Amino acid sequence: MQVSDCKACAGTWPPADHRIADCGLTVAHLFEDQFFPGWTVLVLKRHARELFDLTRDERSQVIEEVTAVARALAEVFQPVKINYGLLGNQLPHIHWHVVPRLAGDPVPLDAVWGVKHEAVRLEGDELEEKLAMIRARLKSEGN
Amino acid sequence: MQVSDCKACAGTWPPADHRIADCGLTVAHLFEDQFFPGWTVLVLKRHARELFDLTRDERSQVIEEVTAVARALAEVFQPVKINYGLLGNQLPHIHWHVVPRLAGDPVPLDAVWGVKHEAVRLEGDELEEKLAMIRARLKSEGN
Repeated sequence: MQVSDCKACAGTWPPADHRIADCGLTVAHLFEDQFFPGWTVLVLKRHARELFDLTRDERSQVIEEVTAVARALAEVFQPVKINYGLLGNQLPHIHWHVVPRLAGDPVPLDAVWGVKHEAVRLEGDELEEKLAMIRARLKSEGN
Repeated sequence: MQVSDCKACAGTWPPADHRIADCGLTVAHLFEDQFFPGWTVLVLKRHARELFDLTRDERSQVIEEVTAVARALAEVFQPVKINYGLLGNQLPHIHWHVVPRLAGDPVPLDAVWGVKHEAVRLEGDELEEKLAMIRARLKSEGN
């Protein structure tokens, strides 16, 4: 994939209205399908495919950003477990999925990918409230 | 889960004969099902559930260990993409899946979890050769 074909580089994904915060090297957005509540993606600002395409300092910072978002999501959603995934099969531009797995999750033992479901789209006040709750927790951590 | 119930802490998983190397804070094993060739897991030596249960220094080191293994797997298997996953739904003890996705992968756009298939078990010389190839690449990186 050329950078010019990359929807993360073009800024067309994730949807701008789902933006949570600029985390430093990454930007966090609520994932556009909230069937699993709180599913967040951190997208690297620069184009890179693999962990070994980053410098050591970048890796250290990115994992801190992933951790800060995970901690904020844990405080907001009180999950049983959190899943962290850097896949890139469909979009080979580094983006981390951080997925709180809540009590009452329909498939608690499985990964979220490939689970058949109706997509849940948040809009308006419901979306804004969720974004604000996560931002407030991130801010209280000093991020 | 109590530490006493944790099969990673008990040393009963991953299978000892699939051990690749001691990476420092983690130990790398070839995953016991090699349907996706090269699928490797790095298991944290101490019991911890989430990234925010580690210190910052531990996180930095662990992501370096994951990266070193990913680089070795890239050299051995020449994948199209690598997937990195820290899930813990079934075993909430930090372990990273590092999965090279090769040309000819049956589901190149999908995550590996939940893909129906017959498990592929390696044994004897075939297993030893694969372990040796990965170890040699890890060693040449100075790990």
